[in-house]
Amino acid sequence: MRSSADGMHLVAMVNPPTSQYSENWRHPLSRRDWLSAEFYLDLGRTLERGCFDMLFLPDALAVPEDNTGDFATTLVTGGKGAIYLDPLITLSLVAGATRHLGLAATISTTFTPAYSIARKLLSLDHLSGGRVAWNIVTSTTDAEAANFGLTSIPPKAERYDRADDVVQTVVDLLESWQPGALTLDGPRRQFADPELVHRIPERPLSGRSRPLSRGPITLPRSPQGRPVLMQAGSSPRGMEFAARWAEVVFAVADTPDAMRAVRTELRDRAAAAGRNPDQLAVLPAVQPITGSTRAAAFATVQSLEAALDGEGVLTKLGRLLHAAREDLNPDGSAEELLLAHRGATGSEGFEQMLLAAAHRQSMTVRDLANAQAMNQLHPQPVGDPADIADYLCELYDSEAADGFVIMSALYPSSLEEFVNGVVPELQARGRFRSSYSGRTLRDHLGTSL
Amino acid sequence: MRSSADGMHLVAMVNPPTSQYSENWRHPLSRRDWLSAEFYLDLGRTLERGCFDMLFLPDALAVPEDNTGDFATTLVTGGKGAIYLDPLITLSLVAGATRHLGLAATISTTFTPAYSIARKLLSLDHLSGGRVAWNIVTSTTDAEAANFGLTSIPPKAERYDRADDVVQTVVDLLESWQPGALTLDGPRRQFADPELVHRIPERPLSGRSRPLSRGPITLPRSPQGRPVLMQAGSSPRGMEFAARWAEVVFAVADTPDAMRAVRTELRDRAAAAGRNPDQLAVLPAVQPITGSTRAAAFATVQSLEAALDGEGVLTKLGRLLHAAREDLNPDGSAEELLLAHRGATGSEGFEQMLLAAAHRQSMTVRDLANAQAMNQLHPQPVGDPADIADYLCELYDSEAADGFVIMSALYPSSLEEFVNGVVPELQARGRFRSSYSGRTLRDHLGTSL
Repeated sequence: MRSSADGMHLVAMVNPPTSQYSENWRHPLSRRDWLSAEFYLDLGRTLERGCFDMLFLPDALAVPEDNTGDFATTLVTGGKGAIYLDPLITLSLVAGATRHLGLAATISTTFTPAYSIARKLLSLDHLSGGRVAWNIVTSTTDAEAANFGLTSIPPKAERYDRADDVVQTVVDLLESWQPGALTLDGPRRQFADPELVHRIPERPLSGRSRPLSRGPITLPRSPQGRPVLMQAGSSPRGMEFAARWAEVVFAVADTPDAMRAVRTELRDRAAAAGRNPDQLAVLPAVQPITGSTRAAAFATVQSLEAALDGEGVLTKLGRLLHAAREDLNPDGSAEELLLAHRGATGSEGFEQMLLAAAHRQSMTVRDLANAQAMNQLHPQPVGDPADIADYLCELYDSEAADGFVIMSALYPSSLEEFVNGVVPELQARGRFRSSYSGRTLRDHLGTSL
Repeated sequence: MRSSADGMHLVAMVNPPTSQYSENWRHPLSRRDWLSAEFYLDLGRTLERGCFDMLFLPDALAVPEDNTGDFATTLVTGGKGAIYLDPLITLSLVAGATRHLGLAATISTTFTPAYSIARKLLSLDHLSGGRVAWNIVTSTTDAEAANFGLTSIPPKAERYDRADDVVQTVVDLLESWQPGALTLDGPRRQFADPELVHRIPERPLSGRSRPLSRGPITLPRSPQGRPVLMQAGSSPRGMEFAARWAEVVFAVADTPDAMRAVRTELRDRAAAAGRNPDQLAVLPAVQPITGSTRAAAFATVQSLEAALDGEGVLTKLGRLLHAAREDLNPDGSAEELLLAHRGATGSEGFEQMLLAAAHRQSMTVRDLANAQAMNQLHPQPVGDPADIADYLCELYDSEAADGFVIMSALYPSSLEEFVNGVVPELQARGRFRSSYSGRTLRDHLGTSL
């Protein structure tokens, strides 16, 4: 049953300049000032005008490398991850120019101390009036491990065990001051009530001899109880983790049935873990391409396709799959290539989606390379604003999704077109808020602790 | 010889609510919204109106504990450190509302991975247009160690050895993209020139078998070359570290001669390390108390003193020195007490200053407790704006200082009074800029790499 009066939830996933669409950085409709404050302040204001639940910044901790351990391919082609600003820094800047927009930062549990995570999230949660979410990742590449002094990335099971410990510790730190602990009682000379501030509880940890932190933290309880937890795990272990912790799930699925299956499984797992499944918003990633008319939208698709380079898309696919260029026969079977390089991307859910699509559409390697360069392996509805709204509402109404993570081909034009065109259509259909009814991100999500 | 056309440098050290003056949080002139964005945005605008070089946020990673390991005293009294927002989060917010003000964040080398430090600093340096400084600390307390899963803080020598490795690694990461590496050459399909982007150099490390990071980082070179390095070490090892790395030194000294001695020693050490001493700005901490007239300034001092609580100041001194209350005889010798508790504060320079002052002024324990609660162990000139300007100019002209770290008794009134009153007096004397001549923090400091 739908529990939120606000209708669907919309999250903008933003990662210029080397975004989902591989030629974004070269396209004339893209701004090039994505290292400036103005770029992000404008983006935040656009999303707030569009009543988005939140702005979400993905992250990785190294320039991605190809199968030989070389990062040159990524840099030359502008491959995804060539540039990443720190998400929390960027979102803190946006917090000052917005009043309602939620702010979701990706932080790795493998490479960040729990106390640092808790205090940064809680600092921004206070300064933003309770608008912060943490997108929990465990990191997946050896290149990232090398940037933190390790020779290789720990195995997935070990990373998730640590993630459970880190998230539990972060939550305990976030709650180490009870509500009302900050008394500021001048006449009684009591700044805070020490009876309401605690060390964090002792808990069993996954094979660790000492707790990750002791507490208390140097900040009172968050205005929204605590920052919202978000996650994207799609492997069985990732789903188990999401069912335990996540309040927002970034889901990877390319058909209505696949979306519904993910949502149902996550809700069932959450219920089995003793949670109310309505406290979990499952949001598949979608990259709409729209314009004032259908013709304009299809013209945009054509301009995106026209900018691709036949050799470049193969190079990028090779890098993604950690395959050498000579292993890529453009006319060969995409399915066989994917099976031969399983595990290369670090995301089981994404690879399953690729495999299913390659099989369903009998793709060649070149088809797959083009589709990946266009980000077409995520659903990519094309049409006028009413078409896009119809598509999203049908998924929402049929309970395939609680809302969507909106990906963009071009920054900021794709999001501006969505906010100017699609959002009013969703509002007219009564499926999306016309103004924010509350102040905190938890208010927007309609969830409570 | 003075090398900067801008005259003296001014840095505002800001740590509400539990600031240098112990009763700040209770005083009617203090704002209480120091967990809100508006508080810091207003402060940033005030400092930029006053042409300050930078806003500097100190930090600690735990609520300070007393000699029994209890944090209750700090919380009840509102002792320094009861509340600390993450400096980088707060400064990122301020970056969006300012255009010239430098932004100095405290980050610990003992508890933060080098890659994280480098990328957060570089992210904010890009987004702010080259206005970032890093105040390098090694952390000093067991409470902080416990928040990062350790049983005790490593010894000072070990912390500084690690700090040398961390700073070298951070600098190497900050410089892993050469200038011009980001080519954005659309027609040639070259996003970046991989020949100009590097792994960081292999270097000898202090007893470490593996480098702390490998690089490259996911960001091009900073608009100001790299963020400015700032440090406050006053022990011999701290001075050695500052001479090697620091471009701005926060100096702790309470008389003109002591300031001059620190500055001379740091310049001599920098020269011995092969650096140009004029690239090192030595800024003693000073807490001026001013008002429209001398009478108003002295009335403020009286109101600050009147708010103190006789037992409370002793409790706070005990906590600072890790001394039990029964060890504090209010009428006893402050010097003896200090000698019996050397090393408790973690800062040799600060303890030396206390000892010298206690000896010089034949202080009782109660005198010391009152002076510490008033922050009077740092120089505290009191008078109308012309008096304060005369005091600062004399120190500057006699080369006892290259400028000052301005501490505040009350937020934001102390800084507003300084900006409205003292800054125009300094400008009229030709000792301080009337507008920013450049855009980056390095421009303001007049330093180059």
